Amino acid sequence: MELKKPYLLFLGDAADALAAKVAQGIKTWRPEYCVGQFRLESCNADCDLPDMSISDAVAAGAKTLVIGVANRGGIISDEWINVLVEALEAGMDIASGLHNKLTDIPALVTCAEKQECALFDVRYPTQAYPVATGKKRTGKRLLTVGTDCSVGKMYTSLAIEKEMRDRGMNTDFRATGQTGILISGEGVSADCVVSDFISGAIETISPANSPDHWDVIEGQGSLFHASFAGVTTGLIHGSQADALVLCHEPTRQHMRGLPDYALPDVDVCMAANLATARLTNPNAQFVGVSINTSGLDEQAALSYMAALEEQLGLPVVDPFRQGVGRIVEKLVACS
Amino acid sequence: MELKKPYLLFLGDAADALAAKVAQGIKTWRPEYCVGQFRLESCNADCDLPDMSISDAVAAGAKTLVIGVANRGGIISDEWINVLVEALEAGMDIASGLHNKLTDIPALVTCAEKQECALFDVRYPTQAYPVATGKKRTGKRLLTVGTDCSVGKMYTSLAIEKEMRDRGMNTDFRATGQTGILISGEGVSADCVVSDFISGAIETISPANSPDHWDVIEGQGSLFHASFAGVTTGLIHGSQADALVLCHEPTRQHMRGLPDYALPDVDVCMAANLATARLTNPNAQFVGVSINTSGLDEQAALSYMAALEEQLGLPVVDPFRQGVGRIVEKLVACS
Repeated sequence: MELKKPYLLFLGDAADALAAKVAQGIKTWRPEYCVGQFRLESCNADCDLPDMSISDAVAAGAKTLVIGVANRGGIISDEWINVLVEALEAGMDIASGLHNKLTDIPALVTCAEKQECALFDVRYPTQAYPVATGKKRTGKRLLTVGTDCSVGKMYTSLAIEKEMRDRGMNTDFRATGQTGILISGEGVSADCVVSDFISGAIETISPANSPDHWDVIEGQGSLFHASFAGVTTGLIHGSQADALVLCHEPTRQHMRGLPDYALPDVDVCMAANLATARLTNPNAQFVGVSINTSGLDEQAALSYMAALEEQLGLPVVDPFRQGVGRIVEKLVACS
Repeated sequence: MELKKPYLLFLGDAADALAAKVAQGIKTWRPEYCVGQFRLESCNADCDLPDMSISDAVAAGAKTLVIGVANRGGIISDEWINVLVEALEAGMDIASGLHNKLTDIPALVTCAEKQECALFDVRYPTQAYPVATGKKRTGKRLLTVGTDCSVGKMYTSLAIEKEMRDRGMNTDFRATGQTGILISGEGVSADCVVSDFISGAIETISPANSPDHWDVIEGQGSLFHASFAGVTTGLIHGSQADALVLCHEPTRQHMRGLPDYALPDVDVCMAANLATARLTNPNAQFVGVSINTSGLDEQAALSYMAALEEQLGLPVVDPFRQGVGRIVEKLVACS
């Protein structure tokens, strides 16, 4: 699966900026893929791209309409469908990371077949992955891991990829979730793979490469999340990570969705991830920690990070506030 | 999914006893479910059950024909299909744990629909499982874990269930693989569940129960298996095990299917399993070790087990040679 570029970002009737965070992510990390945005009258989000009709977008070269907005109440409305049909009729593919599948909507399926256009439900794997072999692959790999879900693993991974590219390093972001797939145009939604094949799927999306090449693999879940640690374990083993970066949100009160589960201590979490990673790569090591300090004021954030850096002896940064340059410097020094 | 009993075991054209090990497992652990066996002319296996034609079996009350034999080269032959169609026409359901699905064979699907009989491909989940909640459930749970795949987790679990029942304890075996499902008539094939839902599936098959009730949950894979540890992790978390039993095969040269991976030390493996289990049940503890000593002569086996028992301070038994009575005694003493 590889999405055709460039994209028209569909913001639909987004209630606010947060509802369109997928579109914003694509605009932030892959502005060169975006020719414009499509907004319905009631849209309250804005990705700072030219507003375009479907015909404007096609004239501007758009090949794929990407749904960059969450659907309210899980319903794909008739108003949306009318726009999607118009896009197909104009010859565009459509890509979506929603739970509801485009391929379950007869009007879209019929139109896509007629137009020979593709409907990509990127959350749902369409290829069969092999069982992991555990065999060492050439090239290098960095994996983000977390104390919890939704602590900034995708953001950190994309920031590291950008920093490495800016320094002229040979690197590719490898997406393991639907937003990452829509941003980069390829990848696998790890938590939707049949569990026998999680590690095999990750081996597949980060294949053998040239010795100087780095895959920057987006992590998922947490070894300490009672619902999703199986996904995380398979992902760590399949990645054969040389370098790990821990992501953490220090103000979170409990594990996401699990009110009875406290977050692990950062050092305990790092030790568990390292032990797991070393099964398939005995040389795995941490090269930094990424903190989402959005819940702290600047002084509290700086104090927190300074204390953690002192404790761990590793670069501790908020990618959003300070960038990830120091993590990449550590990575270069270690490898 | 729950299979209707009793069963007619289909041994087909089994080349040898090993090819019919699923049927033998059902006969060993659930003889009361088995009215007879069906063998083709070239069959070289025998489960020591009355040989029956389809009409004999129906007359004897058989409700489900269970495929208890591996299909050669992954092919379901015409000779098999003729028998399966005859069974459906006589009103029986069919259950199979093969990779190839019964429901992919048009002749069977058509006939099953006409007869209103069911085709159970037990390897493939047909229900949607929820995301795990991690919430503590009433009742007690024992889980078998392993240093590797195929070291006796199902056998040990069934032996423990039988021993507990023989002592009048309130217990149920919970199957997590296709053979266990065919033996017990229900369960989930954990490695075929979408990875987001592994732990949730295990929570579902071992629900809240009376305080004196024990689920004996069949483990899968190993935390130290580079291909399947994600499945194992999710299974451990979903089980919320109070009691763990480690299964091990001491003569194995490397992890199954992975020539470059050595088996973990027993104590290292136990520590990792305990740390993982304690995320969802802080009181988890080991109550014994089950050794498959089939590769050792009796004296070597006894010496090996005695040394390990001395090292670990836990009952170490081969269920096949000594039974699991001492493990159950330890379980009772601990709980």
